Amino acid sequence: MSKERFGLAVAQMGPIHLNDSRESTVARLMEMMREAAGRGAKLVVFPELALTTFFPRYWMSEEDAEARFFEPSMPSPATQPLFDLALSLGIGFYLGYAERTENGRHFNTSILVDEHAKIVGRYRKIHLPGHSDHKPEAPFQHLEKKFFEVGNEGFGVWPMLGTTIGQCICNDRRWPETFRVMSLQSAQMVVLGYNTPSWNIHWKEPAHLRMFHHLLSLQANAYQNALWIGAAAKCGAEDGFHMIGGSAIVAPSGEIVAQSQSEEDEVIFVSCDMALGDNFRQHIFNFAKHRRPEHYGLITERTGAGEPLVRGTTS
Amino acid sequence: MSKERFGLAVAQMGPIHLNDSRESTVARLMEMMREAAGRGAKLVVFPELALTTFFPRYWMSEEDAEARFFEPSMPSPATQPLFDLALSLGIGFYLGYAERTENGRHFNTSILVDEHAKIVGRYRKIHLPGHSDHKPEAPFQHLEKKFFEVGNEGFGVWPMLGTTIGQCICNDRRWPETFRVMSLQSAQMVVLGYNTPSWNIHWKEPAHLRMFHHLLSLQANAYQNALWIGAAAKCGAEDGFHMIGGSAIVAPSGEIVAQSQSEEDEVIFVSCDMALGDNFRQHIFNFAKHRRPEHYGLITERTGAGEPLVRGTTS
Repeated sequence: MSKERFGLAVAQMGPIHLNDSRESTVARLMEMMREAAGRGAKLVVFPELALTTFFPRYWMSEEDAEARFFEPSMPSPATQPLFDLALSLGIGFYLGYAERTENGRHFNTSILVDEHAKIVGRYRKIHLPGHSDHKPEAPFQHLEKKFFEVGNEGFGVWPMLGTTIGQCICNDRRWPETFRVMSLQSAQMVVLGYNTPSWNIHWKEPAHLRMFHHLLSLQANAYQNALWIGAAAKCGAEDGFHMIGGSAIVAPSGEIVAQSQSEEDEVIFVSCDMALGDNFRQHIFNFAKHRRPEHYGLITERTGAGEPLVRGTTS
Repeated sequence: MSKERFGLAVAQMGPIHLNDSRESTVARLMEMMREAAGRGAKLVVFPELALTTFFPRYWMSEEDAEARFFEPSMPSPATQPLFDLALSLGIGFYLGYAERTENGRHFNTSILVDEHAKIVGRYRKIHLPGHSDHKPEAPFQHLEKKFFEVGNEGFGVWPMLGTTIGQCICNDRRWPETFRVMSLQSAQMVVLGYNTPSWNIHWKEPAHLRMFHHLLSLQANAYQNALWIGAAAKCGAEDGFHMIGGSAIVAPSGEIVAQSQSEEDEVIFVSCDMALGDNFRQHIFNFAKHRRPEHYGLITERTGAGEPLVRGTTS
């Protein structure tokens, strides 16, 4: 086995409150980027919507949201120092933010930036959770379906930093299709950020399940696709609204090899053996040898669940 | 929430040795069926290839295998007493066996039998693991690709026993496509049997990962598809070749709610709340609302992994 190592850092963030400035938030990102580089990271993963509070929890107009929380350019004046620092350190990064396009469209977006501070990959979130209507009886809103369009660029994988890296965002991690589409493009690593409220506003879900489902999804998708996964939380209580931590780095074995210990700004790091996934890709998950797409048709033919296909019975 | 309950039993089997007769094995199944019915089960799940030893571990000719290990009819004279007992108890069951068709084709097959002892569903294993060539240097073989054809009937779901039940076999549980195709047919429960060797003959996989991957796959697939899953091992050392136990019943929350304690014949039972999955189906995994098949195309377009799709970059 080759012992080629890839230094992967995940930079979890504690709360960003409504009154925090972009500049103060970027300064926190830069401090963690320095720590990541000092520990030998080639790539540092920041959270989803890492420049502002998780604003889809608040009912407001699209115009108000755009003015306060969206980025019309990237880099922007506020984020340019982060790109400059990355270039000087020679480190790549993943960053999530609310994207306003030139045409005024809104996406929940992440980017992959290489060691030359060049944006090489962009992803617009496909699995938007929550709702678009106002739920005044709920303790908070989850308005991703109001403030964002469904991503229109698919799930991508980019050759960078000597490997192949895919990206997704938050709720995407619960959907096995997300990771399969990337492993079918030969991703060896997938990185993502998330903001996961600690309570479910739709039903009385036992609170411990929030963390369990987060880790279970990362672990199963890492194993079943022979991937390294790095996942960065924004967590703790933003203006009183609590979100789970649990930032993690998961190996292609499905094992959690690093996990955050706090609900504050915290860097975790793993020197990833990039050959570990080969054992799985070459045997149990040798896709070319074992997959049977002729029996997977419903995955793309149906959106919602429908009737069982009619089948004969033995007599 | 409706409190409709479904009594589900999983009947794990200890070893079946080469010299054990079909009759002695069926007697063991019948004893566990009686226990399952006594505990209130509507359905009892038996293992994969539950009538013989896990013969794909032995190099032999197809003709020898057919003569010793395949069933040319179901029910057969040896298994008729199991069907008769099921009818008298009014209990359904899942049973795995090696199927020889009228035309002489060979499949690794399971059946679902209803409370009237009628076979209502048949499944022929699609994800065949292992190899077809002789590996004399290996401590044992894994010749499923030699002795069986790939299943030709897809992944089915059958309305029975007041719910909708899908079935698969062993290695299928590691592939998220298996469960997604069944949940898209409105399965509320999936049952399966397995024979999982405790050692990997292809690489030095740490031994504890065998059990971890088994449970991880069940848990993630249950959660991500809002399914009840019942999984029955054949386990312990068959003529010296050890297989893992870990028979389990997993809730739609992804939690293991019953697990075997032994590597011998053992019945586990859960009174399943069939409404539990509704919370997941109606919100986080509301497929009609959240799935985006237009971005899942590679799952059916590719078999093996290929190049990343070319994408534009931001400038």
